[in-house]
Amino acid sequence: MNSKFIVIEGLEGAGKTTARDAVVAELRRHGINDIVFTREPGGTPLAEKLRDLIKQGIEGEQVTDKAELLMLYAARVQLVENVIKPALARGAWVVGDRHDLSSQAYQGGGRGMDSQLMSSLKQAVLGDFTPDLTLYLDVTPEIGLQRARARGALDRIEQESLNFFIRTRDRYLALAAADARIKTIDATRDLPQVTQHLEQTLQQWLQEQQ
Amino acid sequence: MNSKFIVIEGLEGAGKTTARDAVVAELRRHGINDIVFTREPGGTPLAEKLRDLIKQGIEGEQVTDKAELLMLYAARVQLVENVIKPALARGAWVVGDRHDLSSQAYQGGGRGMDSQLMSSLKQAVLGDFTPDLTLYLDVTPEIGLQRARARGALDRIEQESLNFFIRTRDRYLALAAADARIKTIDATRDLPQVTQHLEQTLQQWLQEQQ
Repeated sequence: MNSKFIVIEGLEGAGKTTARDAVVAELRRHGINDIVFTREPGGTPLAEKLRDLIKQGIEGEQVTDKAELLMLYAARVQLVENVIKPALARGAWVVGDRHDLSSQAYQGGGRGMDSQLMSSLKQAVLGDFTPDLTLYLDVTPEIGLQRARARGALDRIEQESLNFFIRTRDRYLALAAADARIKTIDATRDLPQVTQHLEQTLQQWLQEQQ
Repeated sequence: MNSKFIVIEGLEGAGKTTARDAVVAELRRHGINDIVFTREPGGTPLAEKLRDLIKQGIEGEQVTDKAELLMLYAARVQLVENVIKPALARGAWVVGDRHDLSSQAYQGGGRGMDSQLMSSLKQAVLGDFTPDLTLYLDVTPEIGLQRARARGALDRIEQESLNFFIRTRDRYLALAAADARIKTIDATRDLPQVTQHLEQTLQQWLQEQQ
């Protein structure tokens, strides 16, 4: 089987880290051991610098929606060109904590940014590059934010209003419904059930790839 | 007269700082004293952080052309929204050391980036916002780089090849020829002559605005 790019997506507190561990365990059971992990925004020295600016903002200055989006794509192009594509080319699998779907959901849905701008930027930066499989962990914003708060202080984006996350989730669900490469996992249930659903989904997908 | 946005453009070593002083002196002679200075990339706390990343690059990682362009526009949108537009709105004049024309010349010409990408990004970020007057100081790359070297160590972009700057200058000249709001000043001559030409050009333009 050729190497693949698998992305885990979802709101804060959806359980992406636990899901990543389950995905990796499942890949290993299939004899896939050369796995590169990425997270977005970030994953290269430059992209991590941009992540800090995006997540923490900057003292005394409003980060405009457009600047946020442009920094996200600057970080993404560094990660895709310098890490993800080289890893796939040498035969490694890549498991990503977030990728372009996050921008579509958070900036496109949550912030309501212009869809023409979103799609032309995506096309210009990524072209046809897209994950082979996206596992979208669906939680309500109420549950996700409760879990995220239990973890500690919220960053600039996690401090957005509940309505922002409702719009973000709605966009996630709409995009997942329209794309067969995005699988929606109900992540509001108990952890063992979520993990089981995730493993079954991944198993079935891996079989289809053979 | 309404407040205006005047930009000084040109290759490294073209004499932009000296030109700025001449422009300011000329504006003051016309009774214009509320003047805001900007420089690009930079001019806001976030934009200055991006300037450092663009100018210095980052240890052990290649900055892709696309990431460079996206960071330039992220810095630009912060400067335009948080500094230039508010200054113009309160009646101040703005004198900028570089603006969008630099990206058109350096990234579009020098780096040869896709013109479709360049124009859609410009339109998405800036819309119809454009300087009222651009003074383009034209020097050959040989003369400009000689002057820039005499000033000290060259940054990441100043270290590009001579051909890069030849392409950049060619693009500057082509864009200036196609836009009446861009005035080309021969900056290869002696400083007093350059300053005189600059003052005359600005005087005439100011008269046309009344």
